[in-house]
This record gives sequence, structure tokens and C-alpha cells, in this order.
Amino acid sequence: MTQRLEADRELSERLFAGLMDFSRDDPGVTRAPYGDGEQRAHDLMRNAGLALRLTPEIDAAGNMFLTMAGRDPSLPVWMVGSHVDTVPHGGNFDGAAGVIGGLAAVASLRRAGIVPRRSITVAVFRAEESTWFPASYIGSRAAFGLLPADVLDLPRSDSGQSLRHHMTQLGLRPDAVAAGAAHLSPARIHGFVELHIEQGPVLDTQAIPVGLVTGIAGSFRYRKAVCHGTYGHSGAVARPYRHDAVFAMADLITDLDALWAEIEAEGQRATITVGEFFTDPTMHAFAKVPGEVRFCLDVRSENVAILDRIETHLDRLVGAIEAKRGVHFRLGKRTGSTPAVMSRPLHDALAAHATRLGIAHQSLASGAGHDTAVFANQGVPSMMLFIRNQNGSHNPDEQMRMEDFHDAVTLLAHLLADDEA
Amino acid sequence: MTQRLEADRELSERLFAGLMDFSRDDPGVTRAPYGDGEQRAHDLMRNAGLALRLTPEIDAAGNMFLTMAGRDPSLPVWMVGSHVDTVPHGGNFDGAAGVIGGLAAVASLRRAGIVPRRSITVAVFRAEESTWFPASYIGSRAAFGLLPADVLDLPRSDSGQSLRHHMTQLGLRPDAVAAGAAHLSPARIHGFVELHIEQGPVLDTQAIPVGLVTGIAGSFRYRKAVCHGTYGHSGAVARPYRHDAVFAMADLITDLDALWAEIEAEGQRATITVGEFFTDPTMHAFAKVPGEVRFCLDVRSENVAILDRIETHLDRLVGAIEAKRGVHFRLGKRTGSTPAVMSRPLHDALAAHATRLGIAHQSLASGAGHDTAVFANQGVPSMMLFIRNQNGSHNPDEQMRMEDFHDAVTLLAHLLADDEA
Repeated sequence: MTQRLEADRELSERLFAGLMDFSRDDPGVTRAPYGDGEQRAHDLMRNAGLALRLTPEIDAAGNMFLTMAGRDPSLPVWMVGSHVDTVPHGGNFDGAAGVIGGLAAVASLRRAGIVPRRSITVAVFRAEESTWFPASYIGSRAAFGLLPADVLDLPRSDSGQSLRHHMTQLGLRPDAVAAGAAHLSPARIHGFVELHIEQGPVLDTQAIPVGLVTGIAGSFRYRKAVCHGTYGHSGAVARPYRHDAVFAMADLITDLDALWAEIEAEGQRATITVGEFFTDPTMHAFAKVPGEVRFCLDVRSENVAILDRIETHLDRLVGAIEAKRGVHFRLGKRTGSTPAVMSRPLHDALAAHATRLGIAHQSLASGAGHDTAVFANQGVPSMMLFIRNQNGSHNPDEQMRMEDFHDAVTLLAHLLADDEA
Repeated sequence: MTQRLEADRELSERLFAGLMDFSRDDPGVTRAPYGDGEQRAHDLMRNAGLALRLTPEIDAAGNMFLTMAGRDPSLPVWMVGSHVDTVPHGGNFDGAAGVIGGLAAVASLRRAGIVPRRSITVAVFRAEESTWFPASYIGSRAAFGLLPADVLDLPRSDSGQSLRHHMTQLGLRPDAVAAGAAHLSPARIHGFVELHIEQGPVLDTQAIPVGLVTGIAGSFRYRKAVCHGTYGHSGAVARPYRHDAVFAMADLITDLDALWAEIEAEGQRATITVGEFFTDPTMHAFAKVPGEVRFCLDVRSENVAILDRIETHLDRLVGAIEAKRGVHFRLGKRTGSTPAVMSRPLHDALAAHATRLGIAHQSLASGAGHDTAVFANQGVPSMMLFIRNQNGSHNPDEQMRMEDFHDAVTLLAHLLADDEA
């Protein structure tokens, strides 16, 4: 193919603006999964798909699939897409760029009059942001019939209502989800590609618009951990008699930070984050030794051995701090996800297109989790295209330049139009 | 005097029970300064004083003085007393033991038919617990006309209303307080003695019922400090790019803890407490690098040089962490108090009575601040008697054995009856 398939700029700009319209929640945007914001985003994408003559399907969990028929509908399909929910006060691009990018790529094929051999499905997944329900990849796992039934009982962090309740409110079918109804079959998917903002500073620092992902980090997580100490008078309880929960937490974090530095010095990658940390507002006081800290812990790496190493260290560390400080940790329920490896052939095909098109690119790993991990772990050849962005993501200042987005969409359109890929 | 002046057990048990009646706030008790709880405690003490034929006076700030006339009313008086407010969900004894102890000592003189040479005033101070209004010793400073006028504008932490507002609600005279009206004159006070639970574990660990205090710690404090970092995706922002406010705080606390250990190893005493520590509940999330921590810092020592050393270290440390982590600290308004030295003659007189009465005692310093510090720093010969207690104070589990309390009251009664002291 010698023609350059330019992204449909008008469409994508209109869709980003449309999302922003109803999601603004100063500072930033909020689209709660199975809430009003996510539903309106699905409706917006559905209408855009219909205008492109795509056929919509919605599964039991409310995931939406918009399909452009190919020349041979009997072949396994290309699937592209992402999610449209956001964290509270997040940005407009995390997730949405993958759905809008899929639609824009299809639009550029339509405009060029290209009907590829394989059908192309743009997927709009539900509930990817695990801030809300304490579970990963709810929508995409449900699409494969893989969501454990007990996830339906988890409460959403803002409403306190269960996932089942929120699904029912939207007229969806939680019982079918619980029963393992599968809309997708790995054998019927030729390849899955997700466009996503990088969320980190690597591409921006290197001045490269597009990243080709080699793997997605797995994780282990404690969302509701507690360190129990003993309250006491801040002036009257001397050092040897203290059971200070805040000082114990400082020990924990400082030690994990040292381990993390050691891992990085060895050329390995991980992230360790304590995103929430608070003394009890009904009990703490300026003049009290703090007797309790609630916190969460999120540890990620593409390397299972590194995850294991950090977890083993954590277990020993907790015991050592309990002995030293006379405190008690309750880490609570552990959740986790498995690292995922991207498809080398898809990586190389995209790299070849990018080189030919003159789009600067580099390979990198994803520290964040994505729906693509579910596809990869189901054996679907899977790939992510990262788009350079500014100010990270999961925050109100998240930014993305439209020319970088269009580069990624152009690249995706060429892959989808490539009957040999 | 060969007679042993036993404490009035019935009176003190009745008064502690009476306080508990209206202060219960599970867990523990709450008597907010210039609130309903403190006012009812003042009323209870006033009625007990009237029953003992004491003459009540109330100053512009609402401090109450209950006086038993001595044989020579022209002489400077003995003053005993403490405060009756508590921290939120605190215990029933912190403060109240000093007022009830004063009344019980007077009661034992009355019962023994003793009229001492000097008049004895039982003082009931307002607003000693600085958790509520961010200022130390509000009541006792106001009694000497020493309360800075701007303290009247400080909000109470629960109501958000100013000290001035709460005084006015109780019919008191904040304008006179602002103008420096003094009810007390140092020259008119022969000596001040405050009974107080120890609040720490020293006496309990040593199995000694009564402590003779040698000095009261001073402090420096930041009540509303902030560490600003940058929010980011917990998986996507690699270690070198992070500005993690929680990790920065862990650095701060771990380093201060090391300095504290060094100071203790030199045989010096201090306390360092971060009683409140919280990420922003409207912005933090499980999957976000935390961009902000709010915290408070309370540093105390009887030794001004140690306070200075910690403060100098803190200044350097904050700068070093800012440079290392790319965060920014705003410590906010600094408050502080000066250490106070107790009267050696009063200490020795009480030690002599205790030895004679067979009451085990030991000398120790007070890490906590007390109204006595105001008297000592005004040049009034001042002394504190500590009572062994269990489970610290400023918490719901605070305990005190009545036999220990009665030992301290007996000791106080003997001092007050001693015309030579």
C-alpha cells in the first residue's frame, strides 16, 4: 500500500470534546464505571459507530462491540479498543483514546474506500479503572466469561453499592456474567491492539510520539491495609514505650524504597506505591501518638520473579517492624494480576509500518495494567500502541497532543488495512 | 503535725463519677473547652466548692477560683488546681484529677478542723488541651492577663467557631481578655501545685504511686503542615520521575527518628510525634502516586538546646528531601512553648512529707505541657505531683487507681497544712 491513511481528525476531536462535555468534574474529569458518565460515553461511541455503518453488539456485562464487516466474515477478526471509564478527577484521554483511536482508524479506512479481508471490531470495555471496584479488568474479563462471580458483590468506592446493583440499574445481566457467559472466544480473534496514552514520562522525555509495548506489568495489591499501634500522649510517652503506627509505616516505606532502589540498580523494573495513607480522623490528634494508620499498597512489575522477591521481602519486613515497634499489621485481602507478554509479530509489523511511514517510535514496557493483558493471557496475539503524553495520567493535568494521537491512529489504520498482517 | 490527713475518698469518687455522667462519648470522654462539657464540669466543681464553704470567683476568661480563707488573708495564697477539658475521646482523669485533688485536700483540712495560715485557692482553668484551639495554656495565660489578643480569633477544631465566639456564648468577657485584664498576680501567690496523672508509663513500670516533677517540657509545633508532590499513575511513573509525597514523608520521619535515637543515646530526653498524617481523600486513589500529604509535627523537650538542635536539623532535612524527591514542604505556622523548671524547695518539702508518710515517690520530668508552666515562667514557685496511671492519657483507655490518687491528695493536704512550708 502506497497511500497514507490519515487519521480522521475531525471525528476524533469531536469525540474527545463530546466526552469532556458531560464528564467535567473540576479538577479533571470523572466517569465512574457503570455510572452515568461511562454510560454516556458508551452512547457517544455507539452513535459514532452507527454513523460509520458499524454493527453494534452489547454483552451481558455491558461491553460494546462495533464491527465493520470485512471481505471474509468467516475469518477471525481484528479487535481494537479500550475502556471509557476514568479514575475520580482523572484526565479525558486515559482509556478513551483507545476507543476513539479505533473508530478514527476505521473512519480512515472508510474514507479511503478500503474494505479489509478481516472484519474489524472496535471494543468499548466497562470498568477498567480498579479504583472504583477493587478488581482488575472487570469488563474485558467478563467479555471472555472469566469474571469470578464474587466480584459482582464488590462495592463501588463512591456509592457503596455492589457491581451487581450498578449493572442491574443499567439493565444489564449480572446473572449471565456470574454464570460465565462469554461473548468473545480467543479463537475468533486474529489479534487485539489497544491504543493508550503512555501515562508515564518516557516518550515525552525522549521526544518520541509513539511507543510499541513489549509487556504489561502484573501486580500484587493490598487495598485496605491497617497498621495498629497504641494511642498515647505525645509528650508523656517516651521513645521506648511507644507503639507509633505512623513511625512504623515510615519504617515500612523507607525499607521498601531501599529494596526498590536496589532492584532498579540491577536494571530491573518495578513500581511501589502507597497511594492512600491516613490516621483515623475521629481518633487522631495533634497531641496524640497515632494508634492507627490505614493505607494501600500497589506493587507492579513485568517480571514475576521481581514481584515474588518484593512480596517475600514485605512479609519479613512486616514481622520485623511488628517486633521492633510493638505494632500489628493487618494487610487485608490481597489481589493481583499476572504480567502479560505482547505479540512479537504484531510488534514487528507495527514497527515496520512506522518506519515506512516515518513515525518515530521506540519499544517500552507498560507499568500500568490494561485490558490487553486479558487478551494476551487468553492466548490472543496482543499489542499496545502507546501515545506520548504529558503530566502522567490518573490526574486532572493529563495531556496528549492531537498530532501524536493521529500518528498512532495512522499506524493502527495501516496495520488493519494490511491483509498480510 | 503527727495526724495523717486522709483524702476525702467519698468526695473525689463522687466528683469523678459526676464528670463521667455527662462527658461520656464512646469510646472515652469528651469535654470541649468553652463547650457544654467543660461548662458542666465547672458547675460541678463550683457546687462542690460551695459545699466546702469556699468562695468562688470567675475571671474574664471563665477560669474559676474557689478559696478557703486562711488565718491571715493578707498573706500570698497557696494555689492548687488544673483544667477540666479533655481531648476528643480522651480519659476522665487528665486535668480533672488536679481540680478534684485540690478540693479533696481542702476537704480533708476541713474535716480535720485545720485552718492554715495562708488562704488556699483551688483553681479550675479553661482550655488547656491544645487539640481544640491551636494555642497552649489559654485559660491560665488569660488569668495572668497574658493571652495574646489574636488567640481569640482562633477557631475550635470541631465547631470552626472562634474562641471569642465560644467565650461570648458562655457570657464571658473576651474583650477584657484581649485587653490583658489579669485576675492573678504572681506576687500574691505563695506557691502553685498541680496534681496530674503522669500520662506516661514511668511510675507504673517502676511500681511507684507518686512522682515529683522536676521540669516541664517546652515544644515547637507545626499543626497544619503540607508536603506537596505530584500525582501520577502508580504503574506508569518510574522511580526517577516520581514526586511522591508519602515517600518524602517517610524520609522525613525516618530521619527524625534516627536523630531522636541519637539524642536518647546521649541521655537527653525529647519526644517527636506526627499525630495526624493523611493523603487527600478527594484526590488520592489506590492507583495514583500521592501528590499531597497533610500532617502535624509536635516536638518536645525540657531542654531548650535539644529543641533547637531538632529544629535546626529539621530545617536542613526539609531542604534535602525537597531536593531529593522534587517535593515541596509548607510547614505553616509554628507555635511553641518554653520549658519550665519546678521549685526545688517545694519539691524537697513534698519529698520530706512523702518520706515521713511512707508514700513511695520518685523525681521525674514532665514531657507533657501543663498550666503549671505558666506559673513557673511567671516566677511563682511551682510544683507538680504526678499520679501513677495506666494506658497513658489522651485516649479512651486512660486509667488511674483511686488509692494512688488518694496518696497524692494526702501528700498535698500535708503541704497545705504545713504553716512552715
